[in-house]
Amino acid sequence: MAAIGELKPPERILLGPGPSMVPPRVLQAMASPVLGHLDPAFLAIMDETMNLLRYVFQTENALTFPVSGTGSAGMEACLVNLLEPGDRAVIGVNGFFGQRMVEMARRCGADVTVVEAPWGQAVDPEEIRRALGQGKAKVVAVVHVETSTGVLQPLEEVVEVAHAYGAVTLVDAVASLGGVNLPVDKWGIDICYSGSQKCLSAPPGLSPVTVSDHIRQAVNGRKIPVQSWYLDFSLLKTYWGGERVYHHTAPVPMIYALHEALRIVQEEGLEARFARHATHAKALWAGLEGLGLRLFVPEPIRSPTLTTVEVPEGIDEAAVRRRLLSEYGIEIAGGLGPLRGRIWRIGLMGHSAQQRNVFLLLAALGTILHEMGVRVDPGAGVVAAREAYTS
Amino acid sequence: MAAIGELKPPERILLGPGPSMVPPRVLQAMASPVLGHLDPAFLAIMDETMNLLRYVFQTENALTFPVSGTGSAGMEACLVNLLEPGDRAVIGVNGFFGQRMVEMARRCGADVTVVEAPWGQAVDPEEIRRALGQGKAKVVAVVHVETSTGVLQPLEEVVEVAHAYGAVTLVDAVASLGGVNLPVDKWGIDICYSGSQKCLSAPPGLSPVTVSDHIRQAVNGRKIPVQSWYLDFSLLKTYWGGERVYHHTAPVPMIYALHEALRIVQEEGLEARFARHATHAKALWAGLEGLGLRLFVPEPIRSPTLTTVEVPEGIDEAAVRRRLLSEYGIEIAGGLGPLRGRIWRIGLMGHSAQQRNVFLLLAALGTILHEMGVRVDPGAGVVAAREAYTS
Repeated sequence: MAAIGELKPPERILLGPGPSMVPPRVLQAMASPVLGHLDPAFLAIMDETMNLLRYVFQTENALTFPVSGTGSAGMEACLVNLLEPGDRAVIGVNGFFGQRMVEMARRCGADVTVVEAPWGQAVDPEEIRRALGQGKAKVVAVVHVETSTGVLQPLEEVVEVAHAYGAVTLVDAVASLGGVNLPVDKWGIDICYSGSQKCLSAPPGLSPVTVSDHIRQAVNGRKIPVQSWYLDFSLLKTYWGGERVYHHTAPVPMIYALHEALRIVQEEGLEARFARHATHAKALWAGLEGLGLRLFVPEPIRSPTLTTVEVPEGIDEAAVRRRLLSEYGIEIAGGLGPLRGRIWRIGLMGHSAQQRNVFLLLAALGTILHEMGVRVDPGAGVVAAREAYTS
Repeated sequence: MAAIGELKPPERILLGPGPSMVPPRVLQAMASPVLGHLDPAFLAIMDETMNLLRYVFQTENALTFPVSGTGSAGMEACLVNLLEPGDRAVIGVNGFFGQRMVEMARRCGADVTVVEAPWGQAVDPEEIRRALGQGKAKVVAVVHVETSTGVLQPLEEVVEVAHAYGAVTLVDAVASLGGVNLPVDKWGIDICYSGSQKCLSAPPGLSPVTVSDHIRQAVNGRKIPVQSWYLDFSLLKTYWGGERVYHHTAPVPMIYALHEALRIVQEEGLEARFARHATHAKALWAGLEGLGLRLFVPEPIRSPTLTTVEVPEGIDEAAVRRRLLSEYGIEIAGGLGPLRGRIWRIGLMGHSAQQRNVFLLLAALGTILHEMGVRVDPGAGVVAAREAYTS
């Protein structure tokens, strides 16, 4: 076999739906000396990481830790621990990741009732109420920010309805945690998972979860064991909790990276961080509209962390993305499922949410669209964004 | 919440059962700029990583890739894809990780027959034959190097017996891949998983697996879906294979690290690498015996990657490990389960398998044992190891 050459990944401006850009401090922390997963020095780092995660989740939940896998592993962890065969789950579906929850819940043997909304709209709590009225459910699950559409789902009413019917609420916060407000305890969310690589700006590889104490106890009282040994909270809590029983070998450098990324969140402060995401998103929205483009999601439910914008008539959206990548080193994403070819997805998450990235993208996109024959002033996006920043 | 301080992990000499020491080149690669998981530049890195993994597994299997989780996730991935409820599995158990396979297989609803051997001995292929003679089984699973005991399981006869009865063989190669010979295709192993953090000397976080084509097809023909969506090979192959369908966000920096670690394996060459592991293990064994200690596993089935040694009468084994860690920065491990308090486990895996580590450990251990009242010349281990190196 021929020798494989050295790794030389190009530097990208990551403005897709994740991973977001990783601050140099985080990359550096990740390259720190590897410790054993039961080394007292590492156990202290685990404790700090759990404390920092409680801060970003705004929770006191004891079981708040990163699952050793990506966001989808966190999704699966929550579902397999909650659901036993025959349990009923009501799942809000207004995009790709709601559908994924349905698929996973069915693999748990759950009886799933789907409450649908069109892609680009929020799930209606009244429809969840109707579904709950039709029969006892154990879980109501919704996606806070749907990565396929950029819809920000209002959560408080969903939680209220679920609790009124004796169901627990599971929230997918993959594209929201650390970018928009998500006070887990205040809103009464029972269980919630996220990803390391979006608004927290650590690399992909971990899925922070928080599990309320009553759910933790319910998991311990299950009739049959959790179908995943790797993701079984009753075992994981003995490693992450006080007893430190060996479960699996923690992905040590990823924990370092998350620890440093969370320290940066703490330094900035949650309020300031949410405000920064909002500021840059508003400038981006103004800039895209300045280029004559139409935003896909109406403003009241538009997430600042992920913006979706319609592809102009007659434009090959993939060609635009290829040019952004090859000429400017910028990554944005296309649509998924029914939105394939119809929208672009632009993330301003964590470290990526900076004025220079907003300006660069608008300048590059304006230029490319102009060169592809769209009747637009290439600088109109930058001008509109600048106005939004200064107004 | 009080500000959490900067991460300052101490530098350890990692001579436990994993993670092993990570070469600086690998740490550096891991800190390279993060790419999107569908970036063409990243897809090329994935392809190279698969090629490199085929080299270390000595296989042509198309589906050879790293599962996005640690070794236990790879174990679970193989079992959940292979086993449907009611399938019979014959599992060799001669330690902690064989037991773990049993536990996971039962969570798949499998009918498990355990073929036991005492901890510290190999599983007898004749007993596997007897178990297979009692009724049709789908899978025979064994552990190549049992991390709890350091036993190197002879595999060729196990595979032969399994195939004679129409069963496929699943091999746990977590503590062997890249350290001892494991020619997957030549020996006819059907499916095999490992960990990134042992003889490959990447950090923990990935589990390389290789799946033969006939198993891949069998997974596609299952009656019910794989109970884990995250670990479903039929979905994972659409991301790692040619179609590049988005499944989950790959842990990009971990793939960088594995890529670089595998490049180092390729540069050294498999034969030279196995010889290096054997050389340093033999010196360690001589040195430990020079200190009057008794090795736990008889030589014909003693793995060079992980050595187990009996704790001398009257010695508090945990106190010895604490002193090794605090005074010398050396990590070794104690025993698991029935061997708790009775043995130490010393890994010489990947980058950790170096003469200077052998000498340092023997010098430190000799000194500590001497100071704790064991009648031993503190330098006797080093002298014996030196003789082994030079003979």
